[in-house]
Amino acid sequence: MRVFGVDPGLTRCGLGVVDVAANRTATLVAVGVVGSSHEQNLDARLLVIADAVDKWLDAFAPDVLAIERVFAQTNLSTVMGVAQVSGVVLVAAARRGIPVQMHTPSEVKAAVTGNGRADKASVTAMVTRILRLSEPPRPADAADALALAIAHAWRSGNSVATAGGGATAAQQLWRDAERGAKTKKNKETPGPSWR
Amino acid sequence: MRVFGVDPGLTRCGLGVVDVAANRTATLVAVGVVGSSHEQNLDARLLVIADAVDKWLDAFAPDVLAIERVFAQTNLSTVMGVAQVSGVVLVAAARRGIPVQMHTPSEVKAAVTGNGRADKASVTAMVTRILRLSEPPRPADAADALALAIAHAWRSGNSVATAGGGATAAQQLWRDAERGAKTKKNKETPGPSWR
Repeated sequence: MRVFGVDPGLTRCGLGVVDVAANRTATLVAVGVVGSSHEQNLDARLLVIADAVDKWLDAFAPDVLAIERVFAQTNLSTVMGVAQVSGVVLVAAARRGIPVQMHTPSEVKAAVTGNGRADKASVTAMVTRILRLSEPPRPADAADALALAIAHAWRSGNSVATAGGGATAAQQLWRDAERGAKTKKNKETPGPSWR
Repeated sequence: MRVFGVDPGLTRCGLGVVDVAANRTATLVAVGVVGSSHEQNLDARLLVIADAVDKWLDAFAPDVLAIERVFAQTNLSTVMGVAQVSGVVLVAAARRGIPVQMHTPSEVKAAVTGNGRADKASVTAMVTRILRLSEPPRPADAADALALAIAHAWRSGNSVATAGGGATAAQQLWRDAERGAKTKKNKETPGPSWR
């Protein structure tokens, strides 16, 4: 499954394409950021992003587009721009008949790190490991778009092998991450029966 | 000047095209509403609107597109959809090199009725008079899009004839409206020197 993850933003919009195999192994296809300047008019800024998304959709022909679900409740100062960008991205996908799925930031963090409240550094570190990269993806802003793409594929996957039943490297990595996240969480709020 | 006014909305998006002469006389060119159902996916809903806006832009070739400025502070439940629609509309104009101007609802109301807090019925009544229509524009939801178009042309006009200096019918109508609005306003908060 080829997933195009988009982390919408007016100043910097993260773009990431990932191929995810049936065994959950994820491979980096493309990563980038498209940005626009505050000095430009809003319509020109949105067009820069629309053009980039069109180009990526045509170049990489993803099976699905995953984008962050925007809430009006969070970051009121930037939420309007994020919503406008997301509208543009959704239409670009719809024009090509490419299905769109939205995920919340906490869903993405939970899928990729095992912890819905993971910080940015943890997400980037896990994305780097999951994609078997020798160093964190550049530009750094694009890690969230890759996380979105990975999270979408994993969340929509039909099955995860049961424990001990021939887990792939990616599945093992995932379990390690889940365990690591649980360990961390429980260090913060220790309890007698955390495992 | 041909102005395309767009009153953005996900369920109902108002569209209105108006020609405004140098003497401020405004003439209706086209009016309509494009809507989408709650049952559709968000991307499909946005595409319906994008397709309609594309069609109108190509059919009527406006000189400028006027759209409501969206604030995150108001109507939190619908503001995200409005912002997403506005993003789609802005890109459609930008693709064609058609300039875009945003106006707040109170700017539009003030320009059309002389009162920034005018109610919907007053706006519709003034739009009907300004465009010299025999009855209110249909569909009713589209009156705001026409008001936006008229307001844009009038607000961006280079000059308004000074009082008594050969006012056109439209200018006279405008002054009457301003006077009416002031009278109304001062009835609410009476003072000794309101005129």
